[in-house]
Amino acid sequence: MKADFKHILYGGDYNPNQWPEAVWKEDMELFDKARINSATVNVFSWAKLQPSEERYDFEELDKVIEMLGKNHKDIVLATSTAAMPAWMFRKYPEVARTDYAGRHHKFGQRQNACPNSPVYQRYAAKLAQKLAKRYGHLDSVVCWHINNEYSGECYCENCEKAFRVWLRKKYGTLKALNEAWNTEFWGHTLYDWEEIVLPNALGEGLEWCSGTAFAGISIDYARFNSDSMLENFKMERNAIRSVDQKTPVTTNLMGTFKQLDYFKWAKEMDVVSWDNYPSYDTPVSLTAMQHDLMRGLKQQPFMLMEQTPSQQNWQPYNSLKKPGQMRAQSYQAIAHGADTIQFFQLRRSVGGCEKFHGAVIAHAGTDNTRVFREVTQLGTELEELGDQILGTANPADVGILFDWDNYWALEFTSGPHKDLKYVDQIHRHYKFFYEKNIAVDMIPRDADFSKYKLIVAPVLYMVHQGVKEALEAFVKKGGVLVTGFMSGIVGESDNVYLGGYPGPLRDLAGIWVEEIDALAPEQKNSVKFKDGTEFTSTMLCDLIHLEGAESMADYSSNFYAGTPAVTKNSYGKGTVYYLGTQPEDCAFTRMMDCIVKEAAVKSLVDERTSLEVTVRKTKENTFYFLINFSKEETVVPQCFAGMQNLLTGETVSRQEILKPFEVEIIKK
Amino acid sequence: MKADFKHILYGGDYNPNQWPEAVWKEDMELFDKARINSATVNVFSWAKLQPSEERYDFEELDKVIEMLGKNHKDIVLATSTAAMPAWMFRKYPEVARTDYAGRHHKFGQRQNACPNSPVYQRYAAKLAQKLAKRYGHLDSVVCWHINNEYSGECYCENCEKAFRVWLRKKYGTLKALNEAWNTEFWGHTLYDWEEIVLPNALGEGLEWCSGTAFAGISIDYARFNSDSMLENFKMERNAIRSVDQKTPVTTNLMGTFKQLDYFKWAKEMDVVSWDNYPSYDTPVSLTAMQHDLMRGLKQQPFMLMEQTPSQQNWQPYNSLKKPGQMRAQSYQAIAHGADTIQFFQLRRSVGGCEKFHGAVIAHAGTDNTRVFREVTQLGTELEELGDQILGTANPADVGILFDWDNYWALEFTSGPHKDLKYVDQIHRHYKFFYEKNIAVDMIPRDADFSKYKLIVAPVLYMVHQGVKEALEAFVKKGGVLVTGFMSGIVGESDNVYLGGYPGPLRDLAGIWVEEIDALAPEQKNSVKFKDGTEFTSTMLCDLIHLEGAESMADYSSNFYAGTPAVTKNSYGKGTVYYLGTQPEDCAFTRMMDCIVKEAAVKSLVDERTSLEVTVRKTKENTFYFLINFSKEETVVPQCFAGMQNLLTGETVSRQEILKPFEVEIIKK
Amino acid sequence: MKADFKHILYGGDYNPNQWPEAVWKEDMELFDKARINSATVNVFSWAKLQPSEERYDFEELDKVIEMLGKNHKDIVLATSTAAMPAWMFRKYPEVARTDYAGRHHKFGQRQNACPNSPVYQRYAAKLAQKLAKRYGHLDSVVCWHINNEYSGECYCENCEKAFRVWLRKKYGTLKALNEAWNTEFWGHTLYDWEEIVLPNALGEGLEWCSGTAFAGISIDYARFNSDSMLENFKMERNAIRSVDQKTPVTTNLMGTFKQLDYFKWAKEMDVVSWDNYPSYDTPVSLTAMQHDLMRGLKQQPFMLMEQTPSQQNWQPYNSLKKPGQMRAQSYQAIAHGADTIQFFQLRRSVGGCEKFHGAVIAHAGTDNTRVFREVTQLGTELEELGDQILGTANPADVGILFDWDNYWALEFTSGPHKDLKYVDQIHRHYKFFYEKNIAVDMIPRDADFSKYKLIVAPVLYMVHQGVKEALEAFVKKGGVLVTGFMSGIVGESDNVYLGGYPGPLRDLAGIWVEEIDALAPEQKNSVKFKDGTEFTSTMLCDLIHLEGAESMADYSSNFYAGTPAVTKNSYGKGTVYYLGTQPEDCAFTRMMDCIVKEAAVKSLVDERTSLEVTVRKTKENTFYFLINFSKEETVVPQCFAGMQNLLTGETVSRQEILKPFEVEIIKK
Repeated sequence: MKADFKHILYGGDYNPNQWPEAVWKEDMELFDKARINSATVNVFSWAKLQPSEERYDFEELDKVIEMLGKNHKDIVLATSTAAMPAWMFRKYPEVARTDYAGRHHKFGQRQNACPNSPVYQRYAAKLAQKLAKRYGHLDSVVCWHINNEYSGECYCENCEKAFRVWLRKKYGTLKALNEAWNTEFWGHTLYDWEEIVLPNALGEGLEWCSGTAFAGISIDYARFNSDSMLENFKMERNAIRSVDQKTPVTTNLMGTFKQLDYFKWAKEMDVVSWDNYPSYDTPVSLTAMQHDLMRGLKQQPFMLMEQTPSQQNWQPYNSLKKPGQMRAQSYQAIAHGADTIQFFQLRRSVGGCEKFHGAVIAHAGTDNTRVFREVTQLGTELEELGDQILGTANPADVGILFDWDNYWALEFTSGPHKDLKYVDQIHRHYKFFYEKNIAVDMIPRDADFSKYKLIVAPVLYMVHQGVKEALEAFVKKGGVLVTGFMSGIVGESDNVYLGGYPGPLRDLAGIWVEEIDALAPEQKNSVKFKDGTEFTSTMLCDLIHLEGAESMADYSSNFYAGTPAVTKNSYGKGTVYYLGTQPEDCAFTRMMDCIVKEAAVKSLVDERTSLEVTVRKTKENTFYFLINFSKEETVVPQCFAGMQNLLTGETVSRQEILKPFEVEIIKK
Repeated sequence: MKADFKHILYGGDYNPNQWPEAVWKEDMELFDKARINSATVNVFSWAKLQPSEERYDFEELDKVIEMLGKNHKDIVLATSTAAMPAWMFRKYPEVARTDYAGRHHKFGQRQNACPNSPVYQRYAAKLAQKLAKRYGHLDSVVCWHINNEYSGECYCENCEKAFRVWLRKKYGTLKALNEAWNTEFWGHTLYDWEEIVLPNALGEGLEWCSGTAFAGISIDYARFNSDSMLENFKMERNAIRSVDQKTPVTTNLMGTFKQLDYFKWAKEMDVVSWDNYPSYDTPVSLTAMQHDLMRGLKQQPFMLMEQTPSQQNWQPYNSLKKPGQMRAQSYQAIAHGADTIQFFQLRRSVGGCEKFHGAVIAHAGTDNTRVFREVTQLGTELEELGDQILGTANPADVGILFDWDNYWALEFTSGPHKDLKYVDQIHRHYKFFYEKNIAVDMIPRDADFSKYKLIVAPVLYMVHQGVKEALEAFVKKGGVLVTGFMSGIVGESDNVYLGGYPGPLRDLAGIWVEEIDALAPEQKNSVKFKDGTEFTSTMLCDLIHLEGAESMADYSSNFYAGTPAVTKNSYGKGTVYYLGTQPEDCAFTRMMDCIVKEAAVKSLVDERTSLEVTVRKTKENTFYFLINFSKEETVVPQCFAGMQNLLTGETVSRQEILKPFEVEIIKK
Repeated sequence: MKADFKHILYGGDYNPNQWPEAVWKEDMELFDKARINSATVNVFSWAKLQPSEERYDFEELDKVIEMLGKNHKDIVLATSTAAMPAWMFRKYPEVARTDYAGRHHKFGQRQNACPNSPVYQRYAAKLAQKLAKRYGHLDSVVCWHINNEYSGECYCENCEKAFRVWLRKKYGTLKALNEAWNTEFWGHTLYDWEEIVLPNALGEGLEWCSGTAFAGISIDYARFNSDSMLENFKMERNAIRSVDQKTPVTTNLMGTFKQLDYFKWAKEMDVVSWDNYPSYDTPVSLTAMQHDLMRGLKQQPFMLMEQTPSQQNWQPYNSLKKPGQMRAQSYQAIAHGADTIQFFQLRRSVGGCEKFHGAVIAHAGTDNTRVFREVTQLGTELEELGDQILGTANPADVGILFDWDNYWALEFTSGPHKDLKYVDQIHRHYKFFYEKNIAVDMIPRDADFSKYKLIVAPVLYMVHQGVKEALEAFVKKGGVLVTGFMSGIVGESDNVYLGGYPGPLRDLAGIWVEEIDALAPEQKNSVKFKDGTEFTSTMLCDLIHLEGAESMADYSSNFYAGTPAVTKNSYGKGTVYYLGTQPEDCAFTRMMDCIVKEAAVKSLVDERTSLEVTVRKTKENTFYFLINFSKEETVVPQCFAGMQNLLTGETVSRQEILKPFEVEIIKK
């Protein structure tokens, strides 16, 4: 099933129970004024819907849904299960989580349910089904929004038992499990499934370093925890499906959020949705990457479920979005594959944790605000765009591999460098393509590589079964592969591939990495290209022996001066590049330029520009999105002169200028 | 009842049980030598007084009190209840506290009693009453000192139950409570009082940000916790009063200490006392502000209960007070309203946590120390001053509003800026007046504003019932009010005043604040006065619309350049200033200069001077305190030439010089 | 009993159970190639040896030991008790520790046994005895290695009970205990042994400062904890001794590790061994000091039990050792008294926490690595050196006092300066001698001082019974003593010596310290030598009165300008120097130069050199170790010209150059 909206959903989170019904009418008028055509409701209402174990009460929700329906608003209906009623904690303390420190929690906060609590499961599924029965048939209900921002971990006894069951299913025998975790080391051999302890601060958790005593256990726990919550999601989805087979189901994800394996989750979701909350200093390329990742999860358009129209409340410094910035960010989302633009929230709440979180309707309660005007402008434009962009694709020749198992494994491992972070490394590579306006897909380890000319796989630390073969097949047929330090090190259980790094990638890369040096933050090495240009490198330095590859650049300092730092290997009809160290920006760009050339990958526009250029495409049409995220006025590339800007209906002139945050959509 | 001492109490904490009686005689001789006329005793002796549940033993205390009485020392008699005996923890674990992390403590440290433990309450009251019966009639006992430095929090089950009772009494119905906390948000609606959970790390406490999930609960908990300890205080006071109706009762407070609402406490105390422990880098103006706050609690003179004669032990870097510094600090206390000067401690203890804390008698045990000589000099001077300053007033035309509810609410709130701290903001304003030698009262939200020409109310985030009306009445009659960003935002339950910031202050200020921008620490805005002078501002920037007010300065950078940053509004016969951002120091001073002029507020001396000048006054006499806290020799203002310096009996000459830390008291 | 090896043990930790037996043969071949003559086995195998409470299984260990024996490897046989089997945690939760925060742990990590758990004790002793019975008679077993890196603390109920027993034994009466801890202060008087609570975060532990509420309790707990683990050690040792009376017993220590009183431990060990893990930025002098401390524990050669051949995994930045660095560090160990060079580990493990820890055999599994070649070179050299250095002594005229009681007491105390660290202060003094190539012994407080010309006792904060008398006797006979600030303050129970600092050292130093000033990190004082040279000083400044001593340098800033900062006192035939503040490096060196001259202490070579020069000696022979730890090529001192370099057999030439990390051993 795919989401099949009749227009770009434009709206957001709406929680009218906080104010008297008299205000609801005002809300409807203001929504119409701002061209808001949808609302997400019922995100945190469980306590209202089920005031006691025995009693359900849908009266208020009935009213809200009826009103929205009457006012022709599409409804994204949440199941309300991300915060349990207080009575449930009191009667069934097991529904609460036990934290990493081993403390069992009480009523409070949200995203607080133990995923393996049978009580929580029973009541969450029951509520979802009741909602489906009551509202699933309504035309106004266009999407189910299960729970909210699944996140967190639980280390309670129920989870411990469930973890043992999960492990038993995965490994079959304790022998297999002992080998997988290499428990022999430090004498941790297990002889009974009941001996398994969750890896928190009371177990294998290490508080004195960034790693864990047995990364294998921690990685399995991360998988288990992600799976446990996914089971919660599936349970609610199935409850809905038992009565409503037609409305698409989603839950709102969070970009590169570490705890959940979103590629696995996406398989169970009809449509991906996510919440985009850049901070004042988040690189715009990182936001773009997260959009691409969210699109990549199902290789189809996604929903932007939440963004703030103005500011957050929970960041350290909650700067306002500047005039035009929200609009530019919204078009960026659409450009990268969003089919909806939804805000958290439609009206600012009067109290509670997020009362300073931006909203379409401010505490002032009027339409006479900058933010409301900007929302209205965008709404008007989206209304005029209609459905022509809905469901279009974002073709790309480059795939960047993103993998949660690698994310966990790399960061749970003790050594060699504590500042090595998975998302940083991936983003560093993504940013190069972003700045060149080269379209990129964020792809899973089991993607169909053959669709791409260039695969980028940084810190491919853990190489799963089949990945080596798939990469080899890809390169053999002429593909170009980029990888580098801390790749090819371990298998799925975090045990090292013996025989020499980069293990299964050794043939591909044509090198052997004998040692891995770590540079402290105050240390730098120097590296020299074959033409004599010298640059610095940081973080890690692989000590490389060529085994068929050629060196593109050698170290020129430290005791390994004169040995290869960056290599290139011909393999079949293709080429493999290996970056043994982290070069400074200009050198990185230079290398990547060569690689892109080798792979015959093209920018979306020939002309160099600091504008963000993105393409969505159908068989018939190509839509170019031009956005100026720089602080300078910028000329529109010449190739667009004479074409039509969909947003204004005007023809793009020669030397046309885009001011900061200005946007053009050009149909070709 | 007011403290009615016959002279400035000069002495301090005395804990002779730590050493043999042979030493006591030495102590008495040294006290006489240093002109010490009083001692605080029995602060931590519960274990000695009640060695087991059944047995009390006052023999040792009898001796101490008898000896002090014989030696004509006034006694401040403590009740010893700030540290319970070990046997009580063992027999009744409930007397210990449960901390924010949810851990129930054991015997150890001090300020460690659960305020809602019936066992603690019973035995604390019983001990207080026994002490009162035994010693309350003695002429030598001039003041009761209940407990010690009340502080801390408890999150145990007894407190949870008591919190529910407290809430029930406050709100009456769950409906009212749900509205107050806006529990609707995040679905936290409560249906039973028993569902209420204390807001620590296991409940609504947030460890990932500076705020709390429901500030309303946290603020109520802070009120409850303050009230719980206040009940402990009242319980002991009442126990004493049941036998001793004449001796004033105090407990030692701690300046701007966050956890207790000292304005509420002061109503129950006969006299305020406090402990002044500036660090080596504490601004002298902050100490002055704390003195003024302590005086303001009851608008009457206070006791300086503790200061160190030389150094602390518990700060990171425990610098010595330089020669003259302790004396200057002591006169600063007196100048701002202190009627006593007491040290912690009289003799340095041989062991325990504070063995490196300064004392009148050092570990060397002799009078042959710098510190002893300085103490003696001050004692001699105070003896000569006699009672002429006792009980005099500190008149002021300026009131700065200080409010613990605001302190809590501002700092519990999530957003918009994590570095915004209540005391910093208040002190920033106080410092201006301090540097101009303008007398200031620190006043509560329910003060009689009509006494003042100028009311300064920074970050008046929470506006309680009646405050708006009182401020309006004040300004209408010609008063000048200064307020600014993050004011007029919420009511008593931390719910926002809808309709536009600054809510109830909007009419007064003649402005509407549409948005609040937050600047990260590395960001600055520029702001321009009407005369073109430009300055920078930081932290927060209100986006202001004039609604009757005029702009004194506009932003000159960021997207709101050209809009008002600082405004002035005529209201009735008065004027209201609103500072929408935090200007750099020189600009802040310039604005405040205008405001002070507008309010016709005068410095205590016309001449500009870097001396601290303070006035205490009776109907007949005015005492000027001149203290040189600068590092430079400074000329005494000309207006004092020819008058008499009470400390020397000499006439102040023209061009008279005060060296660093020198003091003059001039009677006029 | 002393270790009596037939050659320098060269080998390391070997854990072949992680890989198939097929690999073992390779291991043997590679060991032979690298001249490895020994292996430490069975360090973490308890779970394998005792797979359930009832069953023991030595089959695998039998094979390993048989194979090593057949291959003529000396075996250091560990008892495997540093990580308990999972079943033991499950069946007997008491074996786990309770941490400082009060949390009882579960199965996980290592060094995790409660030292006072009877279950742990029973099974650890049983295992040790079984091992001794089975293998103790073998010629190949040359040393017992009990447990591994004893460390950590436990705050469980068993420990609490054991602590009370320990205290009862130490103090006899509660009166004595109350006096020792000065419980009178803060009213902590104890009336029953059962009232004693362990000083963790739930008891007397202070989380808001660096100190503890009652340092006396914390110091006693530290002693108790060290003793508890020592009892564990003795228990295993005795179990071994009951069947094997001949093989020496050790456990691997960790240099200046804080928690265990190694001087007390060493008395129970036949030979000291330790693990040397310098970080990339550890000063080489600190490593030298730790070697000297390890040698000093028993005043006899020690075993270097662990070092990495290349890199660690658990430091933040795990840099590679550069070519030659491991060799230089190995010879440094030997030069300072090591009779063995052992690595952790012989083969890199495939998984687990330390999989990125360097090893002789890399994951590549071959001899074709830099590291293997360097190990082989060193092995070859050591083989050629044979036994001529084994058991030789390191004579020294200087003793630096190192004392764990002082380490604990100084750092548990609240005030005066939070940055004052014991090892920093000791190392600062050691470094002077190191740079001058003056041989130093690290000595305990009960050493025979008469062996030395110069005793250096920095921060001799706690002066135990007899130490004053011993120091006086030493100086009277002509010895030179250096001490300084924070010395002579407290007795064994952390109670202050009354009457004036430095208490028992006052006569010796001929001074009285009236006050101690603390300088914040941004503050400096200036100090002037008698010749007018001025320098800066930091940290602490004693305010000194001369009582017979003369001033070597006076403060020239702050209010105590003109008073003595550094003093010199003649006492009997000797001299006592007292450094009242922490001078900057050049001034410190200048002072120490004078002192060394006064004491007639000589460098090992007359010529100044940046080489590390060390001497090991027998009656017949003197071995000079020259190591270049600088980054520059350095000339060998002329006095060695013409002598033979044992490592090459060549004669040292005039102007012979040592490159960085190069080493020469010269026999004289």
